[in-house]
Amino acid sequence: MFSTLQLQEILETAIKNLKFPENPKQLYDPITYIINLGGKRIRPLLVLMATDLFGKNPNDAVHAAMAVEVFHNFTLVHDDIMDNAPLRRGKATVHEKWSINVAILSGDVMMVEANKNLAKVNVKYLKDVLDTFNATAQGVCEGQQLDMEFEERDDVSIEEYINMIRLKTAILLGGALKLGAIIAEASEKDANLIYDFGENIGIAFQLQDDILDVYADPEKFGKQVGGDIIANKKTFLLLKAFELAENENLNLLQNLTKQTEFNPKDKIEAVKGIYDTLDIQNIAKTTMNTYMNKALELMAQINVSDQAKAKILELTTQLMARQF
Amino acid sequence: MFSTLQLQEILETAIKNLKFPENPKQLYDPITYIINLGGKRIRPLLVLMATDLFGKNPNDAVHAAMAVEVFHNFTLVHDDIMDNAPLRRGKATVHEKWSINVAILSGDVMMVEANKNLAKVNVKYLKDVLDTFNATAQGVCEGQQLDMEFEERDDVSIEEYINMIRLKTAILLGGALKLGAIIAEASEKDANLIYDFGENIGIAFQLQDDILDVYADPEKFGKQVGGDIIANKKTFLLLKAFELAENENLNLLQNLTKQTEFNPKDKIEAVKGIYDTLDIQNIAKTTMNTYMNKALELMAQINVSDQAKAKILELTTQLMARQF
Repeated sequence: MFSTLQLQEILETAIKNLKFPENPKQLYDPITYIINLGGKRIRPLLVLMATDLFGKNPNDAVHAAMAVEVFHNFTLVHDDIMDNAPLRRGKATVHEKWSINVAILSGDVMMVEANKNLAKVNVKYLKDVLDTFNATAQGVCEGQQLDMEFEERDDVSIEEYINMIRLKTAILLGGALKLGAIIAEASEKDANLIYDFGENIGIAFQLQDDILDVYADPEKFGKQVGGDIIANKKTFLLLKAFELAENENLNLLQNLTKQTEFNPKDKIEAVKGIYDTLDIQNIAKTTMNTYMNKALELMAQINVSDQAKAKILELTTQLMARQF
Repeated sequence: MFSTLQLQEILETAIKNLKFPENPKQLYDPITYIINLGGKRIRPLLVLMATDLFGKNPNDAVHAAMAVEVFHNFTLVHDDIMDNAPLRRGKATVHEKWSINVAILSGDVMMVEANKNLAKVNVKYLKDVLDTFNATAQGVCEGQQLDMEFEERDDVSIEEYINMIRLKTAILLGGALKLGAIIAEASEKDANLIYDFGENIGIAFQLQDDILDVYADPEKFGKQVGGDIIANKKTFLLLKAFELAENENLNLLQNLTKQTEFNPKDKIEAVKGIYDTLDIQNIAKTTMNTYMNKALELMAQINVSDQAKAKILELTTQLMARQF
């Protein structure tokens, strides 16, 4: 078994060794740029961890891990165009730094690069690996589409929201783990269990993000607390508040989210006030814990030793330990 | 052996049977829309013809053919955004009919759908098929990038232009043929010969397009004659004219391509006048024939009977028989 640190070293070396053609520069420079903006490399790490979990050499899964990381970065480049986002990890997004056309086309070629990495997987698992990867990639596109549609809608249910975050962010965690499991020749049952584990922790992580946006300790939180509130982002918290608010609170919430001119601090305070009245933080935490517990139940069913499971569970715990 | 008509029927059935999820509608409706705008289906036909050429059942290559057709349509959707094109085959482009965001994301999911079709290929050839497809897809992206860069440049050489059209349009013909050859278990030598055949006819076709834009019989030509001249498109003809023109003609050509206000008919006549003085049509035809002859030489080297080659050669002849 490899330590998490060793797996991370394998990843960093592999990322450094990702080679793209030199020309045309405008096509390939953005790939190197976005991949080197960093990030926690959670998704490729999950690929390696799953291979390791099922007792095989994680080095066998490096190509699949790179495919997942390059694919993830491709979605960031295209999502940033669609969301009109100027910054990514504190730096200019690709379409800001170059142009929308460059961002579209570099994104496209990243998708090809992801597939090229995937095609390097041992042919024994290739078909299974492709099917899992393609189903995941398709779901991620569907999630992004739903996310954009929700911005235009006033009747998004909690159920729809959970399904959207499942597609947009959670299934890539599940898919990453399943790829690692396939390469480790895990049983189909175990491969599906770890996929479902990933999906459930993914939903829990996103709910945690929603909660942290409002309730994080500003000293420890990387970004501005209340950003989602200012942007009227339809998070679990806002949707739940709309579901539960009545009379005066409902009116107030409607007015607050319709205002075009406002003092950001006042708006955050006022929305938070409604959340507190409706106990939204606790409801969100309870839902988050439900998904986390479901994930842990699924992990418990996987047919390997508790010792082998320790690394993935430790990573999960670390990621969930961000301060409220 | 199958007749071309039979192969086309196999294709039409397969295209009709391409099934995409119903929801989200905005993600999947554009795929059905663009694919059903029609087109000659040359690329998927080449996949089947190559499998047939090497004596195997073209039905075995239908998934690869669908991958090629869906991929080709994906490139149309994204290219139309980048080229700001309002029309495609006389109908609104996807980004015009829906939105740029929808066109980006539907294009992305088409790429996934292409890969899903590819993954259905017999696992025996899967690795080879993926490698050929991915190299082709990457080249097509590079070609589109070069095409966009050339618009901003005043020093594009004929050599660069030929390389651009090779990447942007010709290698997909080569790739389609090679995929069919791989699935037919052709020798590596024959598979590479037919790839090179496709690349060379692809370049010849594009040069023919360039010539037809200026010299086609308006009665028989589908679109406006002289469209490239009006748009200052850097075709083989214009680049060659800039290469050969001297003194007065060079000045005139520079002025004509710099004009912001002009009578289209006059501009077409004037540029055509320069082309005639410089014998550009004949030079272009000679270059086109060089690529066509090279293609035929390559085909002659392929180790199957002349009878088997007849269908692909007939199609090539038909496509080249458009009126000048």
